[in-house]
Amino acid sequence: MPELYDVAAIGNAIVDVIAPATDEFLREQAMDKGAMMLVDETRSAALYAAMAPGMEASGGSAGNTIAGVASFGGRAAYLGKVADDQLGGVFTHDMRAIGAHFDTPPLVGGKATAVSMINVTPDGERTMSTFLGASVEFTADDVDAAVIEGARIVYLEGYLFDAEPARRAFAKAAGLARASGRMIAITLSDGFVVERHRQALLGFLETQVDLVFANDTEVMALFQTEDFDDAVEQLRGKVKIAAVTRGAQGSVITAGGETFTVPVFPVEKVVDTTGAGDQYAAGFMFGLATGRPLNVCGQLGSLAAAEVISHYGPRPLVSLKDLAASKGL
Amino acid sequence: MPELYDVAAIGNAIVDVIAPATDEFLREQAMDKGAMMLVDETRSAALYAAMAPGMEASGGSAGNTIAGVASFGGRAAYLGKVADDQLGGVFTHDMRAIGAHFDTPPLVGGKATAVSMINVTPDGERTMSTFLGASVEFTADDVDAAVIEGARIVYLEGYLFDAEPARRAFAKAAGLARASGRMIAITLSDGFVVERHRQALLGFLETQVDLVFANDTEVMALFQTEDFDDAVEQLRGKVKIAAVTRGAQGSVITAGGETFTVPVFPVEKVVDTTGAGDQYAAGFMFGLATGRPLNVCGQLGSLAAAEVISHYGPRPLVSLKDLAASKGL
Repeated sequence: MPELYDVAAIGNAIVDVIAPATDEFLREQAMDKGAMMLVDETRSAALYAAMAPGMEASGGSAGNTIAGVASFGGRAAYLGKVADDQLGGVFTHDMRAIGAHFDTPPLVGGKATAVSMINVTPDGERTMSTFLGASVEFTADDVDAAVIEGARIVYLEGYLFDAEPARRAFAKAAGLARASGRMIAITLSDGFVVERHRQALLGFLETQVDLVFANDTEVMALFQTEDFDDAVEQLRGKVKIAAVTRGAQGSVITAGGETFTVPVFPVEKVVDTTGAGDQYAAGFMFGLATGRPLNVCGQLGSLAAAEVISHYGPRPLVSLKDLAASKGL
Repeated sequence: MPELYDVAAIGNAIVDVIAPATDEFLREQAMDKGAMMLVDETRSAALYAAMAPGMEASGGSAGNTIAGVASFGGRAAYLGKVADDQLGGVFTHDMRAIGAHFDTPPLVGGKATAVSMINVTPDGERTMSTFLGASVEFTADDVDAAVIEGARIVYLEGYLFDAEPARRAFAKAAGLARASGRMIAITLSDGFVVERHRQALLGFLETQVDLVFANDTEVMALFQTEDFDDAVEQLRGKVKIAAVTRGAQGSVITAGGETFTVPVFPVEKVVDTTGAGDQYAAGFMFGLATGRPLNVCGQLGSLAAAEVISHYGPRPLVSLKDLAASKGL
């Protein structure tokens, strides 16, 4: 199988609605600050009505990562399900416009394109309420074997553990990737996702995964510990490479007996942390696919994360390729 | 008639698609930098396919102004036509979420909600290609008499001169406003709009308008002169108050024999000039409706314009009320 892509990803195809919010608003709406909560159509409509005026932008964790990989100049492909509606058209345009391959057929006559309502508090922290809509109609049939088998790294979004058909799609993708000798990467996505699917995620990590991305909350939830270092040590034993982010404290990378700590890139003002972890994964995997040492992979991740938290919206607004070059990376 | 609103506006209800672009892209697409070009559905689709990944945000010149007035804490109402589709829902949400009255029935079973594709070059200048879609189905029947008669200032968008039914709606609104002793304001909107409708605009200004907003390009196009000062002098004779902006050089306000010059508020980096004129009008009219002297009206306009050009998107991302208070205005 020829290598067609540096990274191919499967994720929930989501359009973000991003609006400024107060901490009081989060309390009134009973939201867990910094987390992702799933909402049904009724709750979604009620929450949207209560939200401040916003901006819409293509999102979805793995979608953001793929946009980041493409922005670095990487060859990228995305698999995910939108509906045949206006926001689905926006998502599709944005994915193709960045140069990523995206060819999953849209859902016709069913639920609308998934929407994540992202409330951004003055500290830049984002709190997400997601209506999954058409995105959960992604099934094993949508796993394009040629894309998976042609990717140096196959990247899977932990959020998809919430939908049974998507979990089966994961299993199919993992099987295809292993059989083709491809690297399998996953992000744990969210602390509550980890709580909901802890055993399944652990099993998947141990048997299928080479590279895992997580933040401090997620890795501590996975091993049910309050001790960050202990959680990282446990993760070290389960996968070849682990990259764990911890906000302003940068990231820790483990690979067998090796450990690297990577600081964040300084940012003048944190405007909106949406997509920080996604862009970290983009930079890291682009670095890995292009043969950089692990500490440089982490620096590329930090650089991409710094760009995305300096403005509203979950995807880079500048060429990450040019940005990396300007920093000598 | 009780006074219900500080400002009520009629405009093309448009959702913006905002993306970074190069000057080369503008040349390839034969666009006039800084201008607004009308495109049909076919050209709209082709241009969108060629554009970079973007962000969507409610726009429309008068819609942006009304959002600004509401952000200052003013009582605001908007009249304009969206379709019964996802982007129409976004526009409606954003208008109501800022606290503005918006109740024009959406178009059902016709064209889609209007979209303006805004290409932003690295210098922050925006170039617009607009598909008018449902917005031009706004007719005199949509002019809600209670809103017009209840507004201290009735604000009309020059762009609507491009559509015959909307011009009739203007005439109806102007008649209602005059009969109720309301102030009528208009923005000239765009140099090419002025070229297309010069005589009609001049006639409307002389017979109906108390307050006019324009930029340097527009006012010089109106009087077919290359001399800015000459154009401003000619405008002085036609309306009670004229507020003419000229980019980084600030604005000139004339009112009878009086003239005020108002500098811009300094901005660290001009990111996207979309909405600068719209927010200037918002600050100016909010000031006028709340009884401020004309030079302070201009300063409020400059302040709102400075906020909006410091980020992507055509509407304020912070409370202009709080911002004005922090500057002692």
